Amino acid sequence: MTEIARLEPDLGLAESLLSRLREASLDPPGLTRDAYGPGEERAHALAIEAAEAAGLAVSRDFAGNTYATLAGADRSAPVLIIGSHLDSVARGGNYDGAAGVAAGLAALAGLVRAGQRPKRDVTVMMTRAEESVWFPVSFAGARAALGRLPAEALAARRSDTGRTLAEHMRALGFDPDAVAAGRRHLDPARLAGFVEAHIEQGPELVEVGRAVAVVPAISGGYRFREGRITGAYAHAGATPKRGRRDAVAALGHIIAGLGAAWDRLEAEGHRVVATFGVVGVDPAMAAWSKIAGEARFTLDIRGVDLPALARLRLALDDLVAEAAAKFGVAVSLGPDTGPRPGFLDPGLVQRLRDCASARFIPFHEMPSGGGHDALAFHEAGVPAAMLFIRNQGGSHTPDEAMAMEDFAEAARILTTLAATH
Amino acid sequence: MTEIARLEPDLGLAESLLSRLREASLDPPGLTRDAYGPGEERAHALAIEAAEAAGLAVSRDFAGNTYATLAGADRSAPVLIIGSHLDSVARGGNYDGAAGVAAGLAALAGLVRAGQRPKRDVTVMMTRAEESVWFPVSFAGARAALGRLPAEALAARRSDTGRTLAEHMRALGFDPDAVAAGRRHLDPARLAGFVEAHIEQGPELVEVGRAVAVVPAISGGYRFREGRITGAYAHAGATPKRGRRDAVAALGHIIAGLGAAWDRLEAEGHRVVATFGVVGVDPAMAAWSKIAGEARFTLDIRGVDLPALARLRLALDDLVAEAAAKFGVAVSLGPDTGPRPGFLDPGLVQRLRDCASARFIPFHEMPSGGGHDALAFHEAGVPAAMLFIRNQGGSHTPDEAMAMEDFAEAARILTTLAATH
Repeated sequence: MTEIARLEPDLGLAESLLSRLREASLDPPGLTRDAYGPGEERAHALAIEAAEAAGLAVSRDFAGNTYATLAGADRSAPVLIIGSHLDSVARGGNYDGAAGVAAGLAALAGLVRAGQRPKRDVTVMMTRAEESVWFPVSFAGARAALGRLPAEALAARRSDTGRTLAEHMRALGFDPDAVAAGRRHLDPARLAGFVEAHIEQGPELVEVGRAVAVVPAISGGYRFREGRITGAYAHAGATPKRGRRDAVAALGHIIAGLGAAWDRLEAEGHRVVATFGVVGVDPAMAAWSKIAGEARFTLDIRGVDLPALARLRLALDDLVAEAAAKFGVAVSLGPDTGPRPGFLDPGLVQRLRDCASARFIPFHEMPSGGGHDALAFHEAGVPAAMLFIRNQGGSHTPDEAMAMEDFAEAARILTTLAATH
Repeated sequence: MTEIARLEPDLGLAESLLSRLREASLDPPGLTRDAYGPGEERAHALAIEAAEAAGLAVSRDFAGNTYATLAGADRSAPVLIIGSHLDSVARGGNYDGAAGVAAGLAALAGLVRAGQRPKRDVTVMMTRAEESVWFPVSFAGARAALGRLPAEALAARRSDTGRTLAEHMRALGFDPDAVAAGRRHLDPARLAGFVEAHIEQGPELVEVGRAVAVVPAISGGYRFREGRITGAYAHAGATPKRGRRDAVAALGHIIAGLGAAWDRLEAEGHRVVATFGVVGVDPAMAAWSKIAGEARFTLDIRGVDLPALARLRLALDDLVAEAAAKFGVAVSLGPDTGPRPGFLDPGLVQRLRDCASARFIPFHEMPSGGGHDALAFHEAGVPAAMLFIRNQGGSHTPDEAMAMEDFAEAARILTTLAATH
C-alpha cells in the first residue's frame, strides 16, 4: 500500500470546482442551490464539466442524480460509491454537500492523473434534494435512486414555490413516474459501499484540533414535532397558584427537568442531545395579563448512545406526568417521528480508519448528529460510512467555513480508499 | 344606624338593568360592549334610562363618563362616588363592570324609594374604556375625568378598528381636546371617596364560601412585556451541550426557577402571583431541527405583599444571571411597566367593613389581583375602596357568573354606605 498511500487527490480540480460553484450560486449573505431548481441544476452542470474534464464517465438517473465513474480492473465487481449532495439550504454556505462531491472527484481525478486503475468501478454520486428545507422529505434523490422513495413523497410541495416534487422533477426533464413505480437505478447487491465526506455541522473537530473524523454512526432518537400542553386561560392577577392550570409553567418544568436529566447523563459521560427548537403560545389567545391555557413545543432527542437515549425518554415521561399533576394540565407529546440511530458498516468504517492511518493522517472519531444521504444507503442495506471535515463556522449559515488543508486530508483518505477497496 | 341598616337596595332595578344590558350586547358565545364604541354607548343609554326612571339627576363629562346623582342634605359637602365601568372585553360576560354600576344605582334607587336623603351628594359614576383590550391605556375614562389622562394616550389606537382614542371620542360627540388640555371634571378635593363593587376575577370567594369581600389593596408588582433571551441558532443534532447557546433552554430554566421560588414563598404563607403569559421563538427562524437562538417572554409578578414581591424580584435577578452563565445567553428583561401596589384608603375600607357588619353580612377580605378604576382614583389622591362579589365562572369569559343573592349583599353594603357616609 506504500505507493498508493502517496497518491495525491487532484486538489486543483476541487478548488476550482468549489470556487465555480460558489460564484454560480451567490445569494448574499450566503449562497443558495435550490433542490430540483436552477441552483442545484447549475451545480450539477459545473460538476459534470469538471468530471468530464478529468476523464470520468458521466451519467444520470431518472431522478436527476449524477454519476461520474472511473472504470476499475474488474468491471463486474460491486461498485464503490463516493457521494454527497449538491443542493444547499437557502443562503447557506458553499461546503455543505459540495465538499463531499469535490472530494470524491478530486480522489478519482488523482487516480486518473497517476494512471492508477482502481480494483472495481468507483463512482462519484452527486445526489439531489438532501436538504429537507425545500421538500419535507428526507434524502429524496438518494432514496429515489435506490427505488425507496415512497410515491406520496412526489406530492410534497417545495416550501417556496408551492409546486410538487414531481412537478419540479418533470420541469427539469426527469421521470417522477419511474420514482413512483419504485424503479431502482442502484441495486444494493451491486454496491460495495457508499462513503460520504461532509463538513462537520458542529464544533467538535475545532475543539479537539483534528482536520477529519471517521463517523461510525448517525444519530437517531425521539422527535416530537407536535407537543402540546393544555391548561386553562385565566386572569394573571386574580388567579392564585392553587387555582392555576398554567401551560407555560408546565412547559418550563419539562424543559428545565429534561435539561437536568441531560446534565446527569453528561456527567456520567453519556452523549446525547435534546432540543426544544420551537416553543410558543397561541398568539390569538395569549396575553401578558393572562395565564396561558395552551403551549406548544417541539422536542428532538438524538444520539447513538442507546442506554442514554432510553434514560432520557424515561425522564421525559416522568416529567410529563409530574407537569400534569403539579400544574393541572394535559400534556400530549404527539407522534414520535424520530429515526432510529444508524450504526454504519463496521467493515467500511474500519477501512476509512486504515486508509487514514496508512497516510499518517490523525483522525477523530465521532457520530453524526444530523442525518445524511449515507443513512439512506445504510437503510437500503448498503455498507455505508462517513468522514467529517472540520468546519469553523456552524451549519446552514453563510459562516460555514472549511480550510482546504483539512479538505485535502479527507480527499487523501478517499483517494487511498478508491485505489484499494 | 338600625333603621338605615334595614334599607333595601332596589334589586328589581338592578335585575332589569343587567338583563337589558345583556340583551343589548349579545355577541355569542358571550357579549361585547366595545369601549368608546356602539356597545358601550348602548350600555350608557340603558343605564341612563334606569337612573332617570329612579329619579336620579344624570349628567355627562367631556370624556363620555356618565353620572347619576342623588342630592344630599349638605350639597356643598364633598361627594361620595360609587362607580364602575360599562365596557366589557370582547365576548366576555355581563357582570364585569356592569354589576358595580347596577349595585350603585340599586343603592341610590333604594334610598329614593325609602325617602331617605343621604348626608352628602352620592353619585353613581359609569366610566368608559376600563378594559385595556380595546385601547392600550389603563382606566382611560376615569383618568380623563380626573384630568390625569396623558395627551399621548389619545393617539392610542383601538385594537380592532385601528382608529385612535381621540377619533373614537369625537365620533360619539365627546371632547378629546378637553382631555388633551388636562381639564378635570372631578376635583379630588371635592370628593369624599370612590367605592367600586366588582365581581371577583378569581375563585377565592367561591373557595372560602363568602358572597362578598372587602378589598383593602390592589396588587402591583413587576411587569416585563418585552423579555428577550439571545443565544445562537445551531444544528440541533450536531451541536453538543457545551457548544450550545440555547435560548429556549435558558427560558425553561427561568420559568421553572421562578416557579420554585414562588413555591417557597407560598409555603411560608406569602401571597403573590407570577405569570409568563406569552412565550415564544421567532417563527421565521426557529425550527424543530435547530437550537433556538432567540426566545421572548412576558412576565407579570403581582401582589400586595411587599417583602414577597421583593424576594421574587431578587430570585428573578439570580435566575437571569444563572441562565446567562449556564446557557451562554444574554437575557434582557426590558422595561418594568408594573404598577406599584395600591393600598386603598384605610378609613373608607373600614367603613365598608362597618356597613357590612351593621347588616350582619359575613364578608371575606382579600386584595384585588387586577387593576380597577378605583386605582385611578386612589392614584389621584381620592380615598378609594372596593367590594368584590363572588363569581363562579372565571374572568373575561362568557362563563363569568354571579348569583343575584350575592350581588344583593354588595348592594346592601353600598346602600348603607350611601345613606350614612
